[in-house]
Amino acid sequence: MRDLKREILTMVEKDLKEIEIALADNLNPYLDLVSDVAGHILFAGGKRLRPLLMVLSARICGYKGDYDKIFSTTFEYLHAATLLHDDLVDGAKLRRGKPVANSIWGNSTAVLVGDFLLARGLSIAAATGKLKVIKVIAGVTESMSQGEIHQLMRKGALDLTEAEYMEIIRRKTAVLFEGACRISAFIANASKKEEKAVSGYGYNMGMAFQMADDVKGSFWTSAASGKPEAGDIRKRKKTLPLVWALQHASEPDASRLREIYAAEATAPMSQPEVDEVLAILEGCGAHAEALGRARRYRDEALADLDALPIDPERRAEMRFLLESVIAI
Amino acid sequence: MRDLKREILTMVEKDLKEIEIALADNLNPYLDLVSDVAGHILFAGGKRLRPLLMVLSARICGYKGDYDKIFSTTFEYLHAATLLHDDLVDGAKLRRGKPVANSIWGNSTAVLVGDFLLARGLSIAAATGKLKVIKVIAGVTESMSQGEIHQLMRKGALDLTEAEYMEIIRRKTAVLFEGACRISAFIANASKKEEKAVSGYGYNMGMAFQMADDVKGSFWTSAASGKPEAGDIRKRKKTLPLVWALQHASEPDASRLREIYAAEATAPMSQPEVDEVLAILEGCGAHAEALGRARRYRDEALADLDALPIDPERRAEMRFLLESVIAI
Repeated sequence: MRDLKREILTMVEKDLKEIEIALADNLNPYLDLVSDVAGHILFAGGKRLRPLLMVLSARICGYKGDYDKIFSTTFEYLHAATLLHDDLVDGAKLRRGKPVANSIWGNSTAVLVGDFLLARGLSIAAATGKLKVIKVIAGVTESMSQGEIHQLMRKGALDLTEAEYMEIIRRKTAVLFEGACRISAFIANASKKEEKAVSGYGYNMGMAFQMADDVKGSFWTSAASGKPEAGDIRKRKKTLPLVWALQHASEPDASRLREIYAAEATAPMSQPEVDEVLAILEGCGAHAEALGRARRYRDEALADLDALPIDPERRAEMRFLLESVIAI
Repeated sequence: MRDLKREILTMVEKDLKEIEIALADNLNPYLDLVSDVAGHILFAGGKRLRPLLMVLSARICGYKGDYDKIFSTTFEYLHAATLLHDDLVDGAKLRRGKPVANSIWGNSTAVLVGDFLLARGLSIAAATGKLKVIKVIAGVTESMSQGEIHQLMRKGALDLTEAEYMEIIRRKTAVLFEGACRISAFIANASKKEEKAVSGYGYNMGMAFQMADDVKGSFWTSAASGKPEAGDIRKRKKTLPLVWALQHASEPDASRLREIYAAEATAPMSQPEVDEVLAILEGCGAHAEALGRARRYRDEALADLDALPIDPERRAEMRFLLESVIAI
């Protein structure tokens, strides 16, 4: 009997190996320092989700060429650039257990290497020879920077609305996933219908990914999520469960949340407060609501796949990717 | 009698007005904060040298369309992005007499608005509909970020060689000037020969511009240069006259320079030390050498113009631009 899951895993592992090689081969800096800093962020155990999404998506759109792995590096370089700039914005100390680049090489070098990675991503996008690819990349970069700025502007705001939250994650996360899929359709010369379906898949996956991340960052054990337990709460992050609870919990609960979250943002939240927040988020239904929304976007992504005229095995690959990434 | 200089000035003033309008019209952010921060750096009395260079260069290549001013904003957006990121790198307090953006809005916002401006520049470049335009923009951005990083790496180094200095200013400055001219040839559908000549003009102008800037920053009065007198010396910048003197002055002079420049870089240089440095740079011929080099690049740019099969009035415009910009 065929073990489809095993076959998919083997194929994805091969893709990931080739993506890894392409990431190292296409950086091309002339300064060793740029290799060091870019390598620090690029080769720190990232899941290569964005390039893998592009590679699988190109395959279901019928791409037969040899350049998909190279083109896919655009998305990892772009992502790495935003991580370098984000770590500076967030004032984080560690990323994936390693000191952040700006703490080792300084803010200036981190900013400039981020700029270099943006430019490399762009050069590789230009190598596709397709102008519409570039337009998507430029639009994604504009969108991501504005999403980041919007989030930063409203960092301490307890009146952040759900609509604003959705707009921020759309710009910060979903448009890049959507762009990776749309571009895969372009390089595969797919039909308009396929382009629309895979782009929708990418967009909905990006939205689900961010919301699932919010759920994991508040409610999952460290062993299950691979992140610090209740880390988003401890850091007073404005995640979907919190935003929803502030607007929908009973007035005493909402008022207590505002009180806890209004405290000096630099001091970590105490354990009793974390427990209290968790109890409120569970009690008012914020956990269930966030989980439900993430699942609805995941299901939308599955529906987009169903709209694609592809063979069942290709569909199984995309379903597998979605389910392993979202995993809620 | 015709007053050609007057006519050129009138035409350039009209170009500059249109560039100014295009810069405001094509920013298109969705957040007011982005308008504020980008506007702070974009509308602070910049000379619009890079877009003007593209507009004039497109005209001599025979461009007849209406989009030159819009396309030219790419170069000002790109330049403004690097200024936002540079001010953070340099730790400067003021730019053109105004507080730097990162001192008003914080490092994070300055970095992210810089990213937005890079992306806007790219979107506008993509609007030319020409893939080779994008390739030039991507290459220029890679080059500029690496030039900045190289400069930053060697900031305190007294053994910076002339070859390194040349490589840094080529990457940081000359490739953008060259790119503005090359792209003007692309959008004008100019011949290979014209492309080569205007690109050479841009490159040599960029090199001359940076060297002239070095001369002004060390030796010109504040009234003549519009900058703080001996400002580059006071800030211990590694400019061409200094780099040259460290390698070519007599051993006692070079040793004294090393002593003064090795002092704690955060403390401003004292006036007696500034005077001593000036005397050494004049005495060993470093001033004359830097001036001579800047003029040689300017003359190379003029020779590139002479290679262009254009009518004398167009040539007079480009010569006028070169001479007003370099002015040494």
